[in-house]
Amino acid sequence: MVASSLLLAALLASPAFAQTFRRTAACPSLGCVLPPDQTDFIAGQTFDIRIEAQAPVNGSEAYNNGTPDEEFHLKIAGEGGQLVDVTEFFGLTEPEVERYNFTYYEDLFAEDAHAPTPVNVLAKSYRNLQLHNPGTYEVELTYNGGQTTKATWVVEPLADCKKAKNVIFFVGDGMAGSMLSAARLLGHKTINGKYQTKLKLDEAPGYGVQMTHSLDSFITDSANSASALFSGKKMTVNGLNAYTDSTGKAFGDPKVETIFEMFRRIEGGQVGIVSKAYIADATPAAVVTHTSQRSQYTSIIEQYLTGVSGNFSWYPWEGVDLLFGGGAENFLPGPGNNNVSQFDRWAGEGYQVGYTKTELEAFDNAQRALAIFTRGNISTWLDQNVYTDLLDLAITPQGERGAHDQPGLKDMTLKAIDILHTRAKERDTGFMLMSEAALIDKEMHVLDIDRALGEVLELDDTVRAVFDHLEEIGELEDTLIVVTADHGHGFDVFGSADTKYLQAQNSDRAKRNAVGIYQNSGLSAYQVPEGVNPTNHSIFTGPQGEGFPVTWDPRYTIAHGWAAIPDHREDYSVNTDHERVPAVKNTTGYFFNPEDNQRGFAMTGNLGVAEGQGVHSLVDVPVFAFGPGHELFRGVMNSPDLAFKVAQALNLGRNSNVTAPYKK
Amino acid sequence: MVASSLLLAALLASPAFAQTFRRTAACPSLGCVLPPDQTDFIAGQTFDIRIEAQAPVNGSEAYNNGTPDEEFHLKIAGEGGQLVDVTEFFGLTEPEVERYNFTYYEDLFAEDAHAPTPVNVLAKSYRNLQLHNPGTYEVELTYNGGQTTKATWVVEPLADCKKAKNVIFFVGDGMAGSMLSAARLLGHKTINGKYQTKLKLDEAPGYGVQMTHSLDSFITDSANSASALFSGKKMTVNGLNAYTDSTGKAFGDPKVETIFEMFRRIEGGQVGIVSKAYIADATPAAVVTHTSQRSQYTSIIEQYLTGVSGNFSWYPWEGVDLLFGGGAENFLPGPGNNNVSQFDRWAGEGYQVGYTKTELEAFDNAQRALAIFTRGNISTWLDQNVYTDLLDLAITPQGERGAHDQPGLKDMTLKAIDILHTRAKERDTGFMLMSEAALIDKEMHVLDIDRALGEVLELDDTVRAVFDHLEEIGELEDTLIVVTADHGHGFDVFGSADTKYLQAQNSDRAKRNAVGIYQNSGLSAYQVPEGVNPTNHSIFTGPQGEGFPVTWDPRYTIAHGWAAIPDHREDYSVNTDHERVPAVKNTTGYFFNPEDNQRGFAMTGNLGVAEGQGVHSLVDVPVFAFGPGHELFRGVMNSPDLAFKVAQALNLGRNSNVTAPYKK
Repeated sequence: MVASSLLLAALLASPAFAQTFRRTAACPSLGCVLPPDQTDFIAGQTFDIRIEAQAPVNGSEAYNNGTPDEEFHLKIAGEGGQLVDVTEFFGLTEPEVERYNFTYYEDLFAEDAHAPTPVNVLAKSYRNLQLHNPGTYEVELTYNGGQTTKATWVVEPLADCKKAKNVIFFVGDGMAGSMLSAARLLGHKTINGKYQTKLKLDEAPGYGVQMTHSLDSFITDSANSASALFSGKKMTVNGLNAYTDSTGKAFGDPKVETIFEMFRRIEGGQVGIVSKAYIADATPAAVVTHTSQRSQYTSIIEQYLTGVSGNFSWYPWEGVDLLFGGGAENFLPGPGNNNVSQFDRWAGEGYQVGYTKTELEAFDNAQRALAIFTRGNISTWLDQNVYTDLLDLAITPQGERGAHDQPGLKDMTLKAIDILHTRAKERDTGFMLMSEAALIDKEMHVLDIDRALGEVLELDDTVRAVFDHLEEIGELEDTLIVVTADHGHGFDVFGSADTKYLQAQNSDRAKRNAVGIYQNSGLSAYQVPEGVNPTNHSIFTGPQGEGFPVTWDPRYTIAHGWAAIPDHREDYSVNTDHERVPAVKNTTGYFFNPEDNQRGFAMTGNLGVAEGQGVHSLVDVPVFAFGPGHELFRGVMNSPDLAFKVAQALNLGRNSNVTAPYKK
Repeated sequence: MVASSLLLAALLASPAFAQTFRRTAACPSLGCVLPPDQTDFIAGQTFDIRIEAQAPVNGSEAYNNGTPDEEFHLKIAGEGGQLVDVTEFFGLTEPEVERYNFTYYEDLFAEDAHAPTPVNVLAKSYRNLQLHNPGTYEVELTYNGGQTTKATWVVEPLADCKKAKNVIFFVGDGMAGSMLSAARLLGHKTINGKYQTKLKLDEAPGYGVQMTHSLDSFITDSANSASALFSGKKMTVNGLNAYTDSTGKAFGDPKVETIFEMFRRIEGGQVGIVSKAYIADATPAAVVTHTSQRSQYTSIIEQYLTGVSGNFSWYPWEGVDLLFGGGAENFLPGPGNNNVSQFDRWAGEGYQVGYTKTELEAFDNAQRALAIFTRGNISTWLDQNVYTDLLDLAITPQGERGAHDQPGLKDMTLKAIDILHTRAKERDTGFMLMSEAALIDKEMHVLDIDRALGEVLELDDTVRAVFDHLEEIGELEDTLIVVTADHGHGFDVFGSADTKYLQAQNSDRAKRNAVGIYQNSGLSAYQVPEGVNPTNHSIFTGPQGEGFPVTWDPRYTIAHGWAAIPDHREDYSVNTDHERVPAVKNTTGYFFNPEDNQRGFAMTGNLGVAEGQGVHSLVDVPVFAFGPGHELFRGVMNSPDLAFKVAQALNLGRNSNVTAPYKK
């Protein structure tokens, strides 16, 4: 059937068709300018420029038998000014030209046929630059016989005033709004449709959503999206504050400075990082490190301490003030770090080093600190607080089973505030803390809904505790708190499941009839702790914190599902003795895990069979803001907007190259 | 494994466990008070009270061999006052006691065993009441040997001022935030991660979300949730501005007045209803009608015209000012309406009556109007604008195939504004319009993603056009525009699908490998119309309106999924020649439809096999507000809050029984 009224509109505006694979993700044309068209900058934000002239040998974009023209150059014009050569504009000497080649597949058919497209490249990088004057900049690359790639860059206006002294930026990794609805249902109670208590996040005076898509793809990964939140620049997948160039190498890529780095450079401010993941993971890494490959864990740990290394011109970095999380595996001696223990190295640089919650709590608040509590990720809230026997299996930094002395997100975050606040006060500056509820994402990937929602509730409990603690230490009025996610997972609750009935049935189809929808969903069966006081609407307080259910295995659980699934079995019950592994690999790819949810029914997946887990999704994710500047965070935003809003609240924009002394 | 730290918390706070089936949905105890505990009222809002004393014969709540005590009575106290009998408080005479019984199943096991629980009931209703003084009211029912059910009601404070003269309330039925993310991806373009144009909704200065759960269930239907939005009272499933009592009858239930009814009663304001569904459907019906059974279509059409009928004390209703939608089937002569054509009846009452877009546009703006364009629902935007051959199958109000002269949501809404504005001006009052993008929900239920997203984009285009039109007619400054959903569906986009590759594969597992995730999602392949002007960021304008793609069948489509699914096949392609029917019934329940998506791969469902469609979900849904009072609509709200905020903007709260003359 013909789309009748559309034939007239046959001329299409954009030549960019989606392809399964891209030549170079951040380069729509053969003449590549990074940062690309449409980039916005904070005034005085440090960045690198890279230009490439590419020539594919074959395929749909073949050029000149694969030979790029030797002549290629970049011009730039400030607002109202003339285009001048980039070297003149910034007062640089012309760098050496890089020459190399790479290959890629144009689509799945080409991959199946093992028919790659080779591409030859000429490239130059200009490093450690800043634009100081707010306004619009026109940028033009000339390449391959006079073709041009044009870019418009905008330097945002300077802020009128400094609204906040401190910023705490929480990231609920993978936390879509649907998960907050579900977490609220488990941890709080309604009477006749009215919640008697709510999430702390529900009270945020600044509220909106942000779009998480990447530079080159509408589905992001966590490196890319966290970089957008922290630098104000969308990246390509796996990129940490560095645009992925075509070299395939991890460290030459053009870098952009984060708001955390700017805060340190301009104010000498205190910077701390907390995560429940292994601490070299993408979100914590995006706070201050730079690489196009988030998997460069050894370098990331080193960058936390000493900044950008190698021959890349960048300014000095004196180390984060604290780093709390999991992932001791990346601190152990190995070939990547000259067989030196990073624990020893950090201790040698004056950091307190700890491995347990007990040691964390004993830290001197005046000293910098490194605390790593587990070999991999920190244990989930559910395992630390409910199914605690599972901690017998958790691995200590030293490699032993039985990591019982682990902190939760709240413990780490409150201690981080104490250290940052104490040190900032002594140095007459402020602090910035990034605290990540990292395991929401990890548990959503493996379809372990109870563990994921436990992490969501832990984040909410942590925000509530931070709010109270900031008030106690007199910093509430000066501290902007932002809570958001880096992306979502397609997830929702659609009813209740009578698990007793499900388990009593013998066929997959009969088991599915345990699901109650609409009126048969009923009220939440996840009971709240005793001590409830609905009359004064005080928060329900349980043994583990505020706003958690006491039952994770009621007869009537939440019936729930995901938009993107591998083959798996579903029983709508909490996994009391293990974290889920929904699918395992066989010769045809990932398939139902015979050990997982044996009492459940089978669901065939809709993802490629190379995927054994769920994946990230498109949905705009929520943004919550409290404190000075919260009013900046409202409505529908784009992920980079958050960096600009934080910069505005902290007044980070500068029309000169400001460098403040930092006192260790 | 034992949840170790939770044993201490064995005393649970709430006795209400979720059950698959409820005795009486709105009555947690055997002594039933409606409106229930926790109800909030607008000052002067009209409502009924009902009390019931129930006595189950057997089961977990059995009482006195199934004999409720004859003595049961209700007392009420105003803020700071003493409890007095409800008849004294309101100056009423005691109504007659109703005596009846009903049965229900306690759970799925009881249903499988055909073992119902009989319940005997005594009940009284007090009708057509108002509370005028803001403050807290304590309500106490004594029943069954001195047991009590207590309720707290709050009458909200009066507004300080009137902010808005007119209100346009858009409902995107079933529209979760994830669908806006997807619709934006199809209808708008990014360059390097920055959208060059966006949804009109993205610009809303008032932004938040609202919780859609019901009185008795965490998953709502559309009657219930629209009633919450329009009356400020959560209902039980299928209830339209009436609390479902235990009689099982449709019309005796205690009613609550909507903000549309209040606006008419207090100001004599103009009230219009527009929907793309059959016009007796739940969302339009919730504007002014009252029944516990949304399926009472014949009564609903009659109530639009003449208000509440029968012996129920309520005030007169002079008919809606306009009604535009589908559903001629409910206007035809039949036993429910004394074999009178409702078209004739409305014409006899002075309404202009039309059946086509041409007739709609020719309506006199000074006269009341009824326009019904199709036998059932109006055709989707996709069928009206892209796959227009499908209109050959659409059925006219007269029952003929080929309903080609149908309006879209924009046509109906703009004409409605012209009529309401003209008539309101002549009568020196304002107007309220409810306009529903109803088919988002219908298409989400049948997993027809392209049709659903077409409806989302049509809603956005309509809001944009309304904004411009209000400016033209000089009403923009006086008109509050609210856009929200009544509930969501668990849905998300998680990548792109190479449909060419999918169709070339021969097995289900190989077809799934057509999905590209993360970087392989790429950019949207849904092309935008020519005439794009990215430099001045003007909206892309195509032949059908603003912000629609010109391609609905690119090679690379959105890979997407739902949290709740029946058995179905997925091919990630637009259905060009039919609306989807994912599953069909066989002897074991709903099963894969062999005619649907034959090129796709099979996915087994996770819903009970009695379900052939997707179902509603828990996710909080977005709220957008423009115009005077928009600042009231921010952050995390509960669905009833919206009615209170509209009432506040319109200053509908009154401390006396105000009745203004209404001029037809």
